[in-house]
Amino acid sequence: MKPELGVCYYPEHWPEAMWAEDAARMVETGISWVRIGEFAWSRMEPAPGDLQLDWLDRAIETLGAAGLRVVLGTPTATPPRWMLEKHPDMLAVDAQGKTRKFGSRRHYCFSHPGYVQESVRIARIMGERYGRNPHIAAWQIDNEYGCHDTTVSYGLAALHAFRLWLKDQYGSIDALNEAWGNIFWAMECRDFDQIDLPNLTVTEPNPAHVLAFRRFSSDQVVAYNKAQADVLRALTDAPLLHNYMGRVLDFDHFKVGEDLDIATWDSYPIGFLSDRLEADETHKTAFLQQGDPDMQAFHHDLYRAVGRGRWWVMEQQPGPVNWAPYNPAPLPGMVKLWSLEAVAHGAEVVSYFRWRQAPFAQEQMHAGLLTPNNRPAPALTEAKQTSDALSEIGNVVQTQAQVAILFDYASDWAWSTQPQGAGFDYFRLVFSAYRALRRAGLSVDFVSSTNIPRVGYKFILAPGIATVSDNLERQLVEASDLLILGPRSGAITHDFQIPRARPGLSGLNCDVDLVETLPPNIRRSVEGGGAAQHWIDRVSGAASNLLTFADGTPALLGENRLWYLAGFPDDKLWDRVVEMAARKTEVTLYPMLKGLRRRETATHVFLINYNAQPVAWNGDVVDACDVAVTQKDAPEEE
Amino acid sequence: MKPELGVCYYPEHWPEAMWAEDAARMVETGISWVRIGEFAWSRMEPAPGDLQLDWLDRAIETLGAAGLRVVLGTPTATPPRWMLEKHPDMLAVDAQGKTRKFGSRRHYCFSHPGYVQESVRIARIMGERYGRNPHIAAWQIDNEYGCHDTTVSYGLAALHAFRLWLKDQYGSIDALNEAWGNIFWAMECRDFDQIDLPNLTVTEPNPAHVLAFRRFSSDQVVAYNKAQADVLRALTDAPLLHNYMGRVLDFDHFKVGEDLDIATWDSYPIGFLSDRLEADETHKTAFLQQGDPDMQAFHHDLYRAVGRGRWWVMEQQPGPVNWAPYNPAPLPGMVKLWSLEAVAHGAEVVSYFRWRQAPFAQEQMHAGLLTPNNRPAPALTEAKQTSDALSEIGNVVQTQAQVAILFDYASDWAWSTQPQGAGFDYFRLVFSAYRALRRAGLSVDFVSSTNIPRVGYKFILAPGIATVSDNLERQLVEASDLLILGPRSGAITHDFQIPRARPGLSGLNCDVDLVETLPPNIRRSVEGGGAAQHWIDRVSGAASNLLTFADGTPALLGENRLWYLAGFPDDKLWDRVVEMAARKTEVTLYPMLKGLRRRETATHVFLINYNAQPVAWNGDVVDACDVAVTQKDAPEEE
Amino acid sequence: MKPELGVCYYPEHWPEAMWAEDAARMVETGISWVRIGEFAWSRMEPAPGDLQLDWLDRAIETLGAAGLRVVLGTPTATPPRWMLEKHPDMLAVDAQGKTRKFGSRRHYCFSHPGYVQESVRIARIMGERYGRNPHIAAWQIDNEYGCHDTTVSYGLAALHAFRLWLKDQYGSIDALNEAWGNIFWAMECRDFDQIDLPNLTVTEPNPAHVLAFRRFSSDQVVAYNKAQADVLRALTDAPLLHNYMGRVLDFDHFKVGEDLDIATWDSYPIGFLSDRLEADETHKTAFLQQGDPDMQAFHHDLYRAVGRGRWWVMEQQPGPVNWAPYNPAPLPGMVKLWSLEAVAHGAEVVSYFRWRQAPFAQEQMHAGLLTPNNRPAPALTEAKQTSDALSEIGNVVQTQAQVAILFDYASDWAWSTQPQGAGFDYFRLVFSAYRALRRAGLSVDFVSSTNIPRVGYKFILAPGIATVSDNLERQLVEASDLLILGPRSGAITHDFQIPRARPGLSGLNCDVDLVETLPPNIRRSVEGGGAAQHWIDRVSGAASNLLTFADGTPALLGENRLWYLAGFPDDKLWDRVVEMAARKTEVTLYPMLKGLRRRETATHVFLINYNAQPVAWNGDVVDACDVAVTQKDAPEEE
Repeated sequence: MKPELGVCYYPEHWPEAMWAEDAARMVETGISWVRIGEFAWSRMEPAPGDLQLDWLDRAIETLGAAGLRVVLGTPTATPPRWMLEKHPDMLAVDAQGKTRKFGSRRHYCFSHPGYVQESVRIARIMGERYGRNPHIAAWQIDNEYGCHDTTVSYGLAALHAFRLWLKDQYGSIDALNEAWGNIFWAMECRDFDQIDLPNLTVTEPNPAHVLAFRRFSSDQVVAYNKAQADVLRALTDAPLLHNYMGRVLDFDHFKVGEDLDIATWDSYPIGFLSDRLEADETHKTAFLQQGDPDMQAFHHDLYRAVGRGRWWVMEQQPGPVNWAPYNPAPLPGMVKLWSLEAVAHGAEVVSYFRWRQAPFAQEQMHAGLLTPNNRPAPALTEAKQTSDALSEIGNVVQTQAQVAILFDYASDWAWSTQPQGAGFDYFRLVFSAYRALRRAGLSVDFVSSTNIPRVGYKFILAPGIATVSDNLERQLVEASDLLILGPRSGAITHDFQIPRARPGLSGLNCDVDLVETLPPNIRRSVEGGGAAQHWIDRVSGAASNLLTFADGTPALLGENRLWYLAGFPDDKLWDRVVEMAARKTEVTLYPMLKGLRRRETATHVFLINYNAQPVAWNGDVVDACDVAVTQKDAPEEE
Repeated sequence: MKPELGVCYYPEHWPEAMWAEDAARMVETGISWVRIGEFAWSRMEPAPGDLQLDWLDRAIETLGAAGLRVVLGTPTATPPRWMLEKHPDMLAVDAQGKTRKFGSRRHYCFSHPGYVQESVRIARIMGERYGRNPHIAAWQIDNEYGCHDTTVSYGLAALHAFRLWLKDQYGSIDALNEAWGNIFWAMECRDFDQIDLPNLTVTEPNPAHVLAFRRFSSDQVVAYNKAQADVLRALTDAPLLHNYMGRVLDFDHFKVGEDLDIATWDSYPIGFLSDRLEADETHKTAFLQQGDPDMQAFHHDLYRAVGRGRWWVMEQQPGPVNWAPYNPAPLPGMVKLWSLEAVAHGAEVVSYFRWRQAPFAQEQMHAGLLTPNNRPAPALTEAKQTSDALSEIGNVVQTQAQVAILFDYASDWAWSTQPQGAGFDYFRLVFSAYRALRRAGLSVDFVSSTNIPRVGYKFILAPGIATVSDNLERQLVEASDLLILGPRSGAITHDFQIPRARPGLSGLNCDVDLVETLPPNIRRSVEGGGAAQHWIDRVSGAASNLLTFADGTPALLGENRLWYLAGFPDDKLWDRVVEMAARKTEVTLYPMLKGLRRRETATHVFLINYNAQPVAWNGDVVDACDVAVTQKDAPEEE
Repeated sequence: MKPELGVCYYPEHWPEAMWAEDAARMVETGISWVRIGEFAWSRMEPAPGDLQLDWLDRAIETLGAAGLRVVLGTPTATPPRWMLEKHPDMLAVDAQGKTRKFGSRRHYCFSHPGYVQESVRIARIMGERYGRNPHIAAWQIDNEYGCHDTTVSYGLAALHAFRLWLKDQYGSIDALNEAWGNIFWAMECRDFDQIDLPNLTVTEPNPAHVLAFRRFSSDQVVAYNKAQADVLRALTDAPLLHNYMGRVLDFDHFKVGEDLDIATWDSYPIGFLSDRLEADETHKTAFLQQGDPDMQAFHHDLYRAVGRGRWWVMEQQPGPVNWAPYNPAPLPGMVKLWSLEAVAHGAEVVSYFRWRQAPFAQEQMHAGLLTPNNRPAPALTEAKQTSDALSEIGNVVQTQAQVAILFDYASDWAWSTQPQGAGFDYFRLVFSAYRALRRAGLSVDFVSSTNIPRVGYKFILAPGIATVSDNLERQLVEASDLLILGPRSGAITHDFQIPRARPGLSGLNCDVDLVETLPPNIRRSVEGGGAAQHWIDRVSGAASNLLTFADGTPALLGENRLWYLAGFPDDKLWDRVVEMAARKTEVTLYPMLKGLRRRETATHVFLINYNAQPVAWNGDVVDACDVAVTQKDAPEEE
């Protein structure tokens, strides 16, 4: 499939007279997709039932006539002000008990039945009107679920739904008390109506209570999305998608993705570096205007799994954004680099956010391809260059990688509920594993616990997987030549109890004697190099020590096709583990330079240089902030 | 006019038997003014309507009989407990929705009509009784508006008043929706009653909404002050004044000042260094017991503008205070230094806070001229020394400075609403400009956008002025040989939109391509020295580059009498800009040493040494913590 | 008395079939005490009035039959869920006005009359059933008063009780207004019903108001505890006790202790190092897996005073805990070290928390003597070793120390209400004094202001005692050869006013001219070595300067048997003061090495090595993490 470019556009923000010219200019730039509509409810329906869709008809017609394919968004992330008068209790409530008011966006609780109905109603109206419109080539449902911490609400709508969900999950209150260990601190309830939401307790609530609430909250997102998907599905043949936001783990993207056709995500490399990446100042300074060299690829690979192969970048940062603590501009070349990197990882479409910078409201300092007064912003040129490059590159065909990481949203919920040490974070752990694979020049797949390919991997990493069922362990072992668990993998049951026998470790005839968490300045050295930080599983038992801490306790245990890592590795230790695994499973490594990354597809090898300086690697020189693409013998397109 | 000394006194805190002795001791110390009454409402009116003013009659008589002139305060900053029973909804509400309870001070919402009436009532009662009293030589209305973050309230009284204010400002809800760009995120309202206060939204509210609310909140302070000023004006010929607090920018002091005769402010140099000054540890350590060498002068110059030439220090720190994170004592000499510095900048009166340290309640650790048990505190001696020095100095006559800074409260509201980078702050920016002028030995005036003198300045700096109308730009150009705008000057319209054409820059035929904000550790070097930090306007266009960033983009653009600074300068860059401007406009600079400052009036030159060591400058030696005063040929007093 | 071991056990968490084996294994380990019951209310009374105590009968019988003595806890720290339906307003309210919900523990307000009655009711039921049970050898009332910041509540129950308490304290509202100085800022009330709780005020409330509320809140804990103690006292002859938590100062432990027979406390050395100790990173790293070398001893000595000689460790950390920011494991030997150190300080019993790690709920990551799946955790072995060591050591007899520190809970309430400088904290101050005595190898007693032994001390330190009555000063002088007051001792009256004449200082014919507080990087050097930090009392008057600051002002003043320290000493200055005092009062010092501590009893000398390395001292070598015990000529047991 030949990758394409898109852009996000808001016809309702601009005089109608500008639309045709905008459309023509998009096409000139090499753009073939345009997303519209996702925040326009107050214009589609200015008052309850007063539908005003003529303008949207004309916008679609104008864009389509220019040759653009339209992604149409349901506007449910921004219910209009009148919705509050119909459903005053639809607003979410934060963990401090404060109602989250109207005046920005995402001001709704997923559990509010009235608002779910309204969402389905507007989706149906749009589906009926545009479901067979030839210009509508895809549908986006809602916008960035979970953004601004909106997955969870502590209001009455959530409480009522949670009690029903619990009854459904546990059947009886006695079963729940038993499963949660409510006898501890006399927390036993005699009725589901005695269960409250797990906020504002005197000290921390039962982690089983919290984890159940987090599961429930994720399920509510899935159900909300499915309600719209179901109604649209019947009315259109175009694919359905959602645009996920980077490093949002509050709901299970795999489950939402099951009801959709394509996964898309919103990629803001420089915003993320400033806003949601743990790194030291040296690293943040080196990549201040480029973004972290692994953060985008991580999400590309993750959403390729979420979309079961089909995925886009729906919003690609084109210049400084407005929302991070600091908002520098991308270095020249980076917009093109990010775009081509997405393609290397299999993006079908890379769509820029947004066409023209808005001169008003919250995001007025967010750059677009055009300035507010319609002059070209720096990214416009790079978009055109990208389009030209894509023509040159041609079809890019993906293939299964040799190594995979098991990714599990519920593990983040579990460990954020009870990190045990302030430095323990699921994303950090998985990301550190991912970085190590990438430093070794490997291309990586993600797999989910409910979707493990039968075609095997050389090795699979499953760090920090909270709950490992026997079935999951068996599937993982079968899917790979080597399974590496730990640290903290399989440490709790589904109901947040310590299992009698630890999956993985029981397979090794080992057990955890105790667990330690460490302050950030403390590391436990491993003989031969590297160290563990944050988390130590002190394990004893029959398995061989493949690596040993300085005090003689095991750092990496293993037998045959199963290894267990007994601590949170620093970079050096991860590198050693990856090397050992690669040697054992006969995987070829391509050790990278700092800031240089490699992605291999069935058809191409991409070398991606995030550095502000050119680098020479293996005979190639890659320019600063640029991508070197090498064509392989192309197989047939899948 | 010969400067005088004053003191703040609370007869209601002490046995009546002490009053006469206190008054005599004040006079002995060289004090001629005494402020009383501003927190005494519960003694003036212990129960609703039960006026008990005999004690106040006697206090005024006793003080006046000793030869003191009295500033009488209206007690409206501290409504008594019974007021809450009459007006339970008069309390302000914080941004988190919590009512700010009785039990300290400033516990009222400026928008509460009932409390406004009560304030006018007590002001009228006092005006009627004391308006013609020969000892009452000035009136203070309320106390430190805005202190403790009290300008803004998020309660119902504010909400109702805000809606009326909006209707008055915008006429129709459609005009408001258009002005604010409410179409963005479907925030459009159909009625003013649908507008809420801009707090507790899911993510940030529309900055136009916030800025309107900030303007409204400032206007409520102005209206509240005017209500009391109007009633007193009819009952007295004595001047009306208010005591502003340092670095409080939440309301427009210029507008409040228009209804008063004298501006006064409360100067706590050591408290401010600890509490409200961004500076590195070296600087804070060097001036720990002296205060920042520019902070007081900045406010002196600012309030000279607010008072249209007439201003006092109403509360001068005399020793350790109680409210800063750390409260060291002034070095010997500093109380006198601060007092003389105020005089150098034109203070008519410097009044110490307070006569005797209170042995009880919130401020019991706040030093006075006397200790709680009536012994002399260190400041008493320095007050007497100051009085002697003032006799020697004689009349001090002010004159317009050669350079000015445009100061604009609304710019602080705008940029605190949307800083775009965490390091961007309006006060910091203006203060860094002011410091640079002072390092160059210049005396500085402030001007406001509504009051630009026709007599010209050599040059005017207008950094960070949010909104620059064509008219304002013309006035500024006319008032100076050189106008220096930027960074971020004219960047938004009155309604927080990006203007189609940027004032200043459009005059230079330039435009901003994009804006960057930077983390604190990143600076962009300028060729030849200095750098920009925090904020970069990347500008392109026709104007000449007077200074250039290392990457070749312009750092200072200009033509003839208009320059634009394309970044937030560090000290070195400010110094270069000031030198270039001075060279161009033929201003003589007097480069200062660290901690040494110079102030020139029509009659005197003051050299003020904030250092704990003596300094030699230009042939003079100024002692540690001392002021050297040189008499010029004195012109006639104004 | 021969010290013994105990353990905390939760039969309700485990199948009844395990109880007998558990009991036998406890006995094998050398354990003779077992605490049960304190969180089991929902099993004792699953529904209101539905008492289900058979299981508890059987548990007690099983444990007793194995030879264990039982400490039975009243379960009032964890009222069951149904209690909320009877008393919906019993929950406490935090300072932000938020109700602290059910779902963890300690969810009650001490002032709620209904809950007090329920607590008395369940205590009576238990007392009636088990008061004469031969296996019940002690009673614990409630659990860790004040833990999770639960001493203070800002709800209606507290408000109503506070008003009654105030009426009782002050008699008339006029007396209260006068005592608090409410005239300041017009805070005067006309009725006790106008007094509100001192939270959510615009700026800080009157410190007299806060201190009264803190006293009241402490008194409510005392009354709550006494209500249960009174009912149990009539029903049992076994001693009554409570388990206090480390570094909780919110209520007066001495007063609670007066109604009990034994003081016990919960000792978590590694948790406390991470969670509640100010120390630099070097220190925290050196003792990361041992705990601070003085923190446990401090509490041991304090609770020996609270228990008037009788005290236990009720919960001894046996491995990693779950609640600190970071939770490393103790080094080998530490569990034994902590146990023997407690014995050195006079513990009758050292009881481990807990027998077996729970596999569920909030504390599932808290280690026990056994792992959740019933294997021995590392601490089990050390418990047995401790038991063996205790047999060898035999009786340990305590004796009054040569030096004492006056400890006063109300001083913490006062100084946390108004620290004046961000670095000033009562516990830090007292702990720094304690450390200095311990560095000098001294054994230390604590005394309370209401219980000063008539038998004299060589010297007493009384730093930071907020209020020093004439009577207290006289008692202290009589009880010692040398009394050392300051800094800040006697600085306020009972009602938080500055006294006309400062106790201590007036005895020296001195007075405080002013007070300074300093940022953490600033120290004021003392001639000859050492410095003061945080706090400086600038004193002048007749007394001799025993030590002088570099600027010539006094650092230590004194005459005969009374000294005053005019600043918060750093370690070096404390050492000098202790040396001077020891020389004057002829106390022999034993200068210690870092991490090595010495405790002398009537019968033994203990050398306790907190270091991870062996140390040689005075001819002895003490192993890493070990205790060297030397028998003296044993006197008769007391």
